[in-house]
Amino acid sequence: MTTYTFEDFTPGRRFEFTARTLTAEEIIAFAQEFDPQPMHIDEAAGRASILGGLAASGWHTSAVMMRMLYDAYIRHSASEGSPGVDRMEWKRPVLAGDTLCGHSEVLDARVSRSRPQIGIVRMRAEVTNQCGEIVAICDYINMMRLAEKGADHAHG
Amino acid sequence: MTTYTFEDFTPGRRFEFTARTLTAEEIIAFAQEFDPQPMHIDEAAGRASILGGLAASGWHTSAVMMRMLYDAYIRHSASEGSPGVDRMEWKRPVLAGDTLCGHSEVLDARVSRSRPQIGIVRMRAEVTNQCGEIVAICDYINMMRLAEKGADHAHG
Repeated sequence: MTTYTFEDFTPGRRFEFTARTLTAEEIIAFAQEFDPQPMHIDEAAGRASILGGLAASGWHTSAVMMRMLYDAYIRHSASEGSPGVDRMEWKRPVLAGDTLCGHSEVLDARVSRSRPQIGIVRMRAEVTNQCGEIVAICDYINMMRLAEKGADHAHG
Repeated sequence: MTTYTFEDFTPGRRFEFTARTLTAEEIIAFAQEFDPQPMHIDEAAGRASILGGLAASGWHTSAVMMRMLYDAYIRHSASEGSPGVDRMEWKRPVLAGDTLCGHSEVLDARVSRSRPQIGIVRMRAEVTNQCGEIVAICDYINMMRLAEKGADHAHG
């Protein structure tokens, strides 16, 4: 399996997510632990809220997005993690039974001045639902090691 | 119990978190589901990484922060949820056994132009560890209903 290094993260490059359906059970389990507001743990309360149904906590949507990023490229990369996120927008409710998909795209990339073996890659993840609507957008930074000199690495 | 409404969210007002220790088991369980990078699921891999030990996924720290926000004020508020986050910084590793605490403070607040019964409150949450170091900062928006006219509401 290819290991993506900094050199592979060229502006515009996209990594596609694998679709995943979020169940009521998952939504309730996450919310009971981290965000037990009524619209996240109770179907009737969700329907009565502006969200219109049993809706995932925004932080649950973000955690699912993280798993999609991991499966799409991080697991096969020289990732050194992330110092944070510039923007995390929850644009539409994610309701029980929704099927999420999407992609992440490289915005720009540069080598770290203080650590020249590490690159700083800015990326934008867009999570969509089964109607093609964007439910979440996240602009984040991913630190990536550069290819080791002399290593047998196929550049992207 | 007091229900906080928009009127209570005056700039500078703080809501204190209750301390919580994060165990290795919790860190691994979250990471196995949402962010199974080696430093989040394996003690030895964590020690070998720049994080220096078995370290929580940043999204786990954010989810724990959400629960602290819920317990500190959201559960007793007229919250209408959040459209997103302007900044989520993971400033230091959160390691197994760390005790997290902190607070959230009102930055500014205004009534929505399109929905005059809803206020838009900008807040900054700071999560600290047992050494008093800031491990995470989040600037976020919390939508809050205004007090109903004529309701028996004690303003903050």
